[in-house]
Amino acid sequence: MLAAARRIDGLALRTPVLEISPGLFFKLELLQHSGSFKVRGAFNRILSAGEPLADGVIAASGGNHGLAVAYAARELGVRAEIFVPEVTSPVKVAGIEALGAHITQTGAIYAEAAEAAAKRAAETGALTVHAYDQPEVIAGQGTTGLEIVEQTGGVDTVVVAVGGGGFAAGVTLGTAAVSSVSGTGPRIVAVEPEQIPTLRAALQAGRPVPVEVSGVGADALGASKIGGLAFEILSGPRVESALVTDEAIVAARRTLWQRHRIAAEPAGAAAYAALLSGVYTPSPGERVAVVVCGSNTDPATLAA
Amino acid sequence: MLAAARRIDGLALRTPVLEISPGLFFKLELLQHSGSFKVRGAFNRILSAGEPLADGVIAASGGNHGLAVAYAARELGVRAEIFVPEVTSPVKVAGIEALGAHITQTGAIYAEAAEAAAKRAAETGALTVHAYDQPEVIAGQGTTGLEIVEQTGGVDTVVVAVGGGGFAAGVTLGTAAVSSVSGTGPRIVAVEPEQIPTLRAALQAGRPVPVEVSGVGADALGASKIGGLAFEILSGPRVESALVTDEAIVAARRTLWQRHRIAAEPAGAAAYAALLSGVYTPSPGERVAVVVCGSNTDPATLAA
Repeated sequence: MLAAARRIDGLALRTPVLEISPGLFFKLELLQHSGSFKVRGAFNRILSAGEPLADGVIAASGGNHGLAVAYAARELGVRAEIFVPEVTSPVKVAGIEALGAHITQTGAIYAEAAEAAAKRAAETGALTVHAYDQPEVIAGQGTTGLEIVEQTGGVDTVVVAVGGGGFAAGVTLGTAAVSSVSGTGPRIVAVEPEQIPTLRAALQAGRPVPVEVSGVGADALGASKIGGLAFEILSGPRVESALVTDEAIVAARRTLWQRHRIAAEPAGAAAYAALLSGVYTPSPGERVAVVVCGSNTDPATLAA
Repeated sequence: MLAAARRIDGLALRTPVLEISPGLFFKLELLQHSGSFKVRGAFNRILSAGEPLADGVIAASGGNHGLAVAYAARELGVRAEIFVPEVTSPVKVAGIEALGAHITQTGAIYAEAAEAAAKRAAETGALTVHAYDQPEVIAGQGTTGLEIVEQTGGVDTVVVAVGGGGFAAGVTLGTAAVSSVSGTGPRIVAVEPEQIPTLRAALQAGRPVPVEVSGVGADALGASKIGGLAFEILSGPRVESALVTDEAIVAARRTLWQRHRIAAEPAGAAAYAALLSGVYTPSPGERVAVVVCGSNTDPATLAA
């Protein structure tokens, strides 16, 4: 984790923390380059490969990971090919193109785009940058957790959204890596939309199992199955699973804009939705960090 | 200045700083309560009055100051009456109403609304909270300057927008108040729209003189004349006047959104416009803080 932090230093931003009320912190990861935390893992994976990468890099994505890989590839002077499903929002497709990556939109959901990308990678020999299920990606995302501990001076709880689980797993490891007692760290509240409960389903089944994918978070939290590595980490004792409704996500997004002038995409507001809707209620005096993790959204929809 | 900081601690937010590239900092004052720096001065003025304020408070504003006074009054349990001109955007009018203040929209520009407010204040005995020309207001705004120095570890230059001049004057004093050598502090680049050059005109005339008011910044930087107190401070040797075109402001606002996911209003992007358009070019290695100071905007206009 600390190695990942050194590797991406100066490439990914150290995003700011805002203490919105005493003991309640927003980690403003939506201000990250490419509009989400995903560049952390993308940089770490690409830089860890230690290859000339003549065949470029390839990734499948709901959108944010594609933006991140396209951004990182451009910064590092590497070609990028990105596969996204039909559910990916026009804002994200346009963004990936603007970063100079080659984009293919195929399949109804992320899993189908991922299949197409895997086939293409076997043909081209490009380095695969997985959206969530690679150690280097999880370690990169986890640098967010390091920063949360450093910037807040320590919290009791971190509330974070779960799609494929790479970000939440990274934050779980990252917050522990800098805790004073080895192996401990804050409670992690892992928040999923009710309509895409990959972690909850895996916890109930005892292993990653596929779920249906729908709802407002589908273009960012739209993995059908929690990642295998992420599940190993997120099934640990520090992690608490929480589900939120799409209505709660929409309401949290509106509040972030209207009250705090933070322009999140729906998935980026999912963690805060757990607090606002009362799905997770902090105890008196509990110090809580909420990660607002993505902003790749049509701003016209904020006013709604 | 330090007294103001103590007075408003816990009421105004300590807004975050983002180092967007080595040595270039955004002070994200647009994430402040009510969407601009103005609550700092409003809280400081109201709390400094030391009266029961049975007659409430009154303010004239282009919009942001009205939002701030309405917010501060609500938080402190005081009645507020706000006068705004016709140029004030619907987003700001609706926001002031939502905060429970009594609002009157009258006059074409700020100066006319201010006249109506002064007349009304004489009738009601309400405490006037001036938008820029009161010591307590300037001291409150100046707490932003204290934070910039603390949060960046010191900068060579602060780039800040000028309307009536209260904010820029406060930041000039605030950055000096915590500098290691008494009376010194960073260079202040005081940025105005070409179409509302209150400071530039005053510097040329040797005293505050009225200017025409128009352009995209008019509902936030729309004072017709620099404040008398502000002019005393901003005519000092540390301050450099800079003018930007409306086109540069619009372009900077677009860049702030598209590249950094920061949702500023036009006036909030004016300081950054000075850098992006090359009106102010930092030297190699120069450490610069740009204050992004307002976000009370219709988000639908960000996509343009």
